[in-house]
Amino acid sequence: MATTAELWERFERANREIATWGWLQALAGWDQQTGMPPGAAGDRQEQEAALTRLLHERTTDPALGELLVALEGRDDPTELQRVAIEQATWGWRRSVAVDAGLAERLARVRSETMTAWLGARQTGDHGPWLAAMEGQLALVRERASAIAAATGHDGPLYDVLLEDYDRGVRSADLTALFDRLVPGLRGILDAVEPSPEPEAWAESADAQRALCEELSRAVGFDFSIGRLDRSEHPFTTRCGLRDVRITTRFLPDDPLGAVFATLHEAGHGMYEQGMAPSLAGAGLMHAPSTGLHESQSRFWENAIGRSPAFVRWLRGPLSRHLAAVPDAEALWTRVNRVARTPIRVEADQVTYNLHIALRFQLEQALISGELAVADLPAAWDDAMERTLGLRPADAATGVLQDIHWSFQLFGYFPSYTLGNVWAASFLLHLETELPVDELVGAGDFAPILGWFREHVHQRGATVRVDRLLKDAIGERDHVADLLTVLGRS
Amino acid sequence: MATTAELWERFERANREIATWGWLQALAGWDQQTGMPPGAAGDRQEQEAALTRLLHERTTDPALGELLVALEGRDDPTELQRVAIEQATWGWRRSVAVDAGLAERLARVRSETMTAWLGARQTGDHGPWLAAMEGQLALVRERASAIAAATGHDGPLYDVLLEDYDRGVRSADLTALFDRLVPGLRGILDAVEPSPEPEAWAESADAQRALCEELSRAVGFDFSIGRLDRSEHPFTTRCGLRDVRITTRFLPDDPLGAVFATLHEAGHGMYEQGMAPSLAGAGLMHAPSTGLHESQSRFWENAIGRSPAFVRWLRGPLSRHLAAVPDAEALWTRVNRVARTPIRVEADQVTYNLHIALRFQLEQALISGELAVADLPAAWDDAMERTLGLRPADAATGVLQDIHWSFQLFGYFPSYTLGNVWAASFLLHLETELPVDELVGAGDFAPILGWFREHVHQRGATVRVDRLLKDAIGERDHVADLLTVLGRS
Repeated sequence: MATTAELWERFERANREIATWGWLQALAGWDQQTGMPPGAAGDRQEQEAALTRLLHERTTDPALGELLVALEGRDDPTELQRVAIEQATWGWRRSVAVDAGLAERLARVRSETMTAWLGARQTGDHGPWLAAMEGQLALVRERASAIAAATGHDGPLYDVLLEDYDRGVRSADLTALFDRLVPGLRGILDAVEPSPEPEAWAESADAQRALCEELSRAVGFDFSIGRLDRSEHPFTTRCGLRDVRITTRFLPDDPLGAVFATLHEAGHGMYEQGMAPSLAGAGLMHAPSTGLHESQSRFWENAIGRSPAFVRWLRGPLSRHLAAVPDAEALWTRVNRVARTPIRVEADQVTYNLHIALRFQLEQALISGELAVADLPAAWDDAMERTLGLRPADAATGVLQDIHWSFQLFGYFPSYTLGNVWAASFLLHLETELPVDELVGAGDFAPILGWFREHVHQRGATVRVDRLLKDAIGERDHVADLLTVLGRS
Repeated sequence: MATTAELWERFERANREIATWGWLQALAGWDQQTGMPPGAAGDRQEQEAALTRLLHERTTDPALGELLVALEGRDDPTELQRVAIEQATWGWRRSVAVDAGLAERLARVRSETMTAWLGARQTGDHGPWLAAMEGQLALVRERASAIAAATGHDGPLYDVLLEDYDRGVRSADLTALFDRLVPGLRGILDAVEPSPEPEAWAESADAQRALCEELSRAVGFDFSIGRLDRSEHPFTTRCGLRDVRITTRFLPDDPLGAVFATLHEAGHGMYEQGMAPSLAGAGLMHAPSTGLHESQSRFWENAIGRSPAFVRWLRGPLSRHLAAVPDAEALWTRVNRVARTPIRVEADQVTYNLHIALRFQLEQALISGELAVADLPAAWDDAMERTLGLRPADAATGVLQDIHWSFQLFGYFPSYTLGNVWAASFLLHLETELPVDELVGAGDFAPILGWFREHVHQRGATVRVDRLLKDAIGERDHVADLLTVLGRS
């Protein structure tokens, strides 16, 4: 009989191979968004498909399942091994619950819905998109039911989907969270004077690039194991154990767009760079939840990036690279402007979470079947009016604005708000341990990053998110923390 | 029984899958040389190893061998299918002649020799490198013998290796070629007045980058299916059916280094871009020989790039991007300076082929065993003195200057000279069909590229190189052609 050490070695080898193929897939995706020749789109699709097939083979390999059963039966693994085996088994059961036929139908309907979504945004006619979404939702429910049956999940189907991103989170908890957060945010919003649209602020892409490089380096993004590029939609991706890539975008008339996108992605990137490489073999070199990952990007983008001390410090780097830097007061107003906008990705910190609350309600109703797909556009506009007091001018700035549902991401949106509330809690806790304002004002971000390295980053997925938060910052009222932080600016 | 069409479809599917993985490997290699974070070297090595294992599995899959046997037995394939099957069978037999154990030993000794080579270049002590080369040569001979036995190759072992690059070429033909070329080149060399070292010509990397982009676009490199980047050693690689990438380098004090590297790689790149994509399924979307590929790079770099008309036209682009462009005469002298140098990659057009002649002799003697590895450094220096009248100052500028032998490339060097002589023949033939000087002087390169597209590029590997040359330019004396072209400048 194989020893536990031998079984474990096989498990590590499988994890490393899966990681290797996944990182190559990430490289192909990175290349596609940062500079692949336009004519190569068809090539890249075929390469992606080959990698997806191979990864599916490897992650659902019956030999891996048997190995997990054998490891689960042992009584001598270490604590870390026990955690790794439990998590891998949990993920394995969810993966194999979806048979190859269903997986293929899901892939096909996703591609159809994406095509219909792009078409609807161009033509304004959302009829074909609604038809595609109908089929998409039926299969998303079928997948969730299959996982619930195979894993004994007994909550709402929507909760099965939430666990694609944040294991352990329940819709009931999120409902309780939004029930307190939404009135608080609306209170802040009602008290704010609407400020005028800021003037255009033109800066060259080269100047913005140099600025973003300095900023990401200053906060602690490590270029010896990472790089920064330009893409239409900013993102962070890991292409290897020691290869984390972030991107940003340059708006011709607002360099602050690049500044905050860079801080956001640097937050994600530094989280990835801080994970202990020794965890890769155990399959634990990742965040325990999407929400926690988002807390790291929002921490640097908002909790730090929009603070008075940071905005004061920021004028230094801005002046080194840009032509027309506003004075201190004008810069502060630009950075912390609050305004009702129908578009989530353009929203300020306060309204942002109202956008998420709306999506959280609608997607629950879509999954439960309470809301028919045909009624979604009207439901969207009504919800927007109720929540933000706005009616979108058209579907493109309304129900069609996000890619998520068309891309089959249901249950993803709440992670953004979890990230926001946790980022606020991290800041308020950190202020009890470090002179945050003083450090930020001096551009000395290393102690702050060091704290995250120790309490969050290096732990990877060795603990679940609730335990990690408790260890790091104790029990806190996260909703109250976000309202406190927002009330300051 | 499967129909020929069914078998052919399986063959095409296998080719497309092999191509897909190969292109991903090319992407990983491109990334490694153009901007991968330095810390990711270990990651990339593991990814490369995984791809190499997968590609080896696919290319030596017994099912592919059976498929080829079945297809060979059919009497109803088309002419193109017949060519594809013949070539695939030829390659298949050579691949499977090398068993997995030998392949692994070859990979290991290559890695050891590369390490020893890098060490010897740093320390100047070539003892460990000679020891590694001893082992490397033994295994290279073992591989060549295995292929010769499996394929009934009855010439010298060295000729088996030549066919890794140029199928059908024999060392006897190359000996005859060099026996005429070398005296002719030495005649030109002896007649040239040694010109002084040119002055430094500093230009920024940004300016050189913009210049190289304009030049590659001007000659016809297609950026919709390609891109141009910077790397330490310029290269061309294909990452997809419609994705060909070239690189160049920027020397701080000589922008002409970038100009000619760019023309060289653009020549390779345009060849790749011109191959008919419909040939990929048949496995024929590649050059029939390394020498022919080299003829395309040398054509644009030398036959066109160093011609009086091109140098006149070049002053336009240079003036648009650079700060200190020499006058017409000084530029001409810089471009066509001839000087004896011990380093191949720095050599002018005349001495370049003398460097190759020397390597051709030495590598034949190494493979036959006539020259002992221990005697190689002295033999190198003596040959250099005989051929060029120079003794290298040290091993780094002598026997250790090239990576090829350490990287297990034996039989590759002659392709460079085949490229040079064929490029000259292409030029002299083209002058009988097109007003080449006039076109080049006007920067109108499209008719020239169009001619290559039709007669060379789009054909891929559907014909062997001798037939392709005959169809394109008839029977010509290639050695005389090169001497004629060199005699002009």
